[in-house]
Amino acid sequence: MIRLGIVGYGNLGKGAVKAIEQNQDMDLVGIFTRRDPNEVVAGDIDVYSVDRVEEFIDKIDVMLLCGGSATDLPEQGPKFARLFNTVDSYDNHEDIPRYHEEMNGVAEKNDNLCAISIGWDPGVFSMNRMFSMSILPEGSHHTFWGPGVSQGHSDAVRRIEGVSDAVQYTIPIEECVEKVRGGEQIDLPSHDRHRRVCYVVTEEDADTDRIEREIKNMPNYFEKYSTDVNFMSEDEMKDDHSGMPHGGFVIRIGNTGTDGDNKHVYELRLALDSNPEFTASVLVAYARAVHRLSCEGNKGAVTVFDVPLSYLSPKSGSELIAEML
Amino acid sequence: MIRLGIVGYGNLGKGAVKAIEQNQDMDLVGIFTRRDPNEVVAGDIDVYSVDRVEEFIDKIDVMLLCGGSATDLPEQGPKFARLFNTVDSYDNHEDIPRYHEEMNGVAEKNDNLCAISIGWDPGVFSMNRMFSMSILPEGSHHTFWGPGVSQGHSDAVRRIEGVSDAVQYTIPIEECVEKVRGGEQIDLPSHDRHRRVCYVVTEEDADTDRIEREIKNMPNYFEKYSTDVNFMSEDEMKDDHSGMPHGGFVIRIGNTGTDGDNKHVYELRLALDSNPEFTASVLVAYARAVHRLSCEGNKGAVTVFDVPLSYLSPKSGSELIAEML
Repeated sequence: MIRLGIVGYGNLGKGAVKAIEQNQDMDLVGIFTRRDPNEVVAGDIDVYSVDRVEEFIDKIDVMLLCGGSATDLPEQGPKFARLFNTVDSYDNHEDIPRYHEEMNGVAEKNDNLCAISIGWDPGVFSMNRMFSMSILPEGSHHTFWGPGVSQGHSDAVRRIEGVSDAVQYTIPIEECVEKVRGGEQIDLPSHDRHRRVCYVVTEEDADTDRIEREIKNMPNYFEKYSTDVNFMSEDEMKDDHSGMPHGGFVIRIGNTGTDGDNKHVYELRLALDSNPEFTASVLVAYARAVHRLSCEGNKGAVTVFDVPLSYLSPKSGSELIAEML
Repeated sequence: MIRLGIVGYGNLGKGAVKAIEQNQDMDLVGIFTRRDPNEVVAGDIDVYSVDRVEEFIDKIDVMLLCGGSATDLPEQGPKFARLFNTVDSYDNHEDIPRYHEEMNGVAEKNDNLCAISIGWDPGVFSMNRMFSMSILPEGSHHTFWGPGVSQGHSDAVRRIEGVSDAVQYTIPIEECVEKVRGGEQIDLPSHDRHRRVCYVVTEEDADTDRIEREIKNMPNYFEKYSTDVNFMSEDEMKDDHSGMPHGGFVIRIGNTGTDGDNKHVYELRLALDSNPEFTASVLVAYARAVHRLSCEGNKGAVTVFDVPLSYLSPKSGSELIAEML
């Protein structure tokens, strides 16, 4: 059995608990929290203060770091890489090279193996961008996000005066998707490939015209996008928009042959009912790989580019060849 | 530079020549043929008799085996694995475990590394089946092939008396595809998920009614399928059906969360203008990986499940992290 720990019990940590239950070769040792462990309700799973992790060095094979990328992981990553093999979903794209270097240094020095930036983007999308580019070196890439909830954009709307709750959906513009799927190499910025739809609950007597104007004119977030704003009651919001769906497409259009006259469309599409539960499921599969690679003596920081796919599966090499090839 | 050789100059070998040209870190040393080399027209590429391969042991890093799976590769694979690192597209699914074992034995004994069953199915589709099953262990798999030309079915029609040429397209039934894409876990046999369309050129005065009957009632190939048969002239055939398009979809519908109430659709779709040119492009990327892994001392037989994706790319590890993650 692979013995796992979870650090952080938000949406991602809750998803990880459920994902571990789906894997017969894994055991959840406990959840580690910065809160008072007595106040964390997690069924019959043991909950410990994060201050006690050192007691678990020989009891946990891989620690799943389920904190956020903004403030949690930059601090937790290196701290836990010193003590455990880890898997995290660090998704601050611009900072990943620096984070990788730091994690690699700490992990190598302490004989641990850490898989960083695991999830769907970075993660599944990155693999498919990289793989399709390697097999089709001449061509173009197109990434679409959504339909799905963007946490960052939802938060931005919630900060507007008079808004008590808000959810923002990013939606790929279907016409663009169909063009690319048909093999057309369009070159459009994100705001011409996506539109945004906001559902907003306001405080009583709030000026909805002003709120709508503020949303639509918000620089970077909405200004250049086609944006719909819908106002609704708290109950409607709860009933219709409490899920966290997301997804998107990575499409590569490659050309081969004389004058590149043969076109190939490679498309990876995800449609996820629950962004955190899917991300957690990916983390858990990579925990299996990290455990195995670590047992073979590997150390340092790795990404989805470094891990052979067979390490992710509970099946043996010969089972994979017979059943999946 | 990675020095490559090509064994066999049919559609796949021709595709490999074009694919190598797209990769700046590769050099094509020559084509090896069983025919009289003087009769093989390959532009300014050197063509040698396959009997001379031993002269090239120190001049070629990886040999691309571009023969067919029916009779060429079962013999060529082990023969070349004795002398060279190789990449092949062996696609006889049922025999792959045996072939893997044989290739692994010969390659290990001779310090060579051989990537077997590389292409799109087996290959890209296998990776996605296996990967999506690892990250979403509870769920179901759905593979659709086409729209595309099936060589085996085209050949079967050509063998009917009175038929002078024929092309058969396998086409996924759109209604099934849409159901699966929407997350429905349908459980239908291949003949209820695909239909077949034949384009047939007959000899003069052939009995087209009989031919159509023979096609539609052919056991295994057509009997259970909805099949359309269209007769046409040799010229029409040449103009409209001389390409070799193919493709298809691998879809996994996974469930997570309490009672599996959250659904996730993972879809990999390929739409290929030229089946052999795409397959050759995949072989060439794996030749890069085989060369690198071999330089690190690896030997034996490997599949798409064993090769870390980073080995397929000409980019360095830090470039991949900065640009593709």
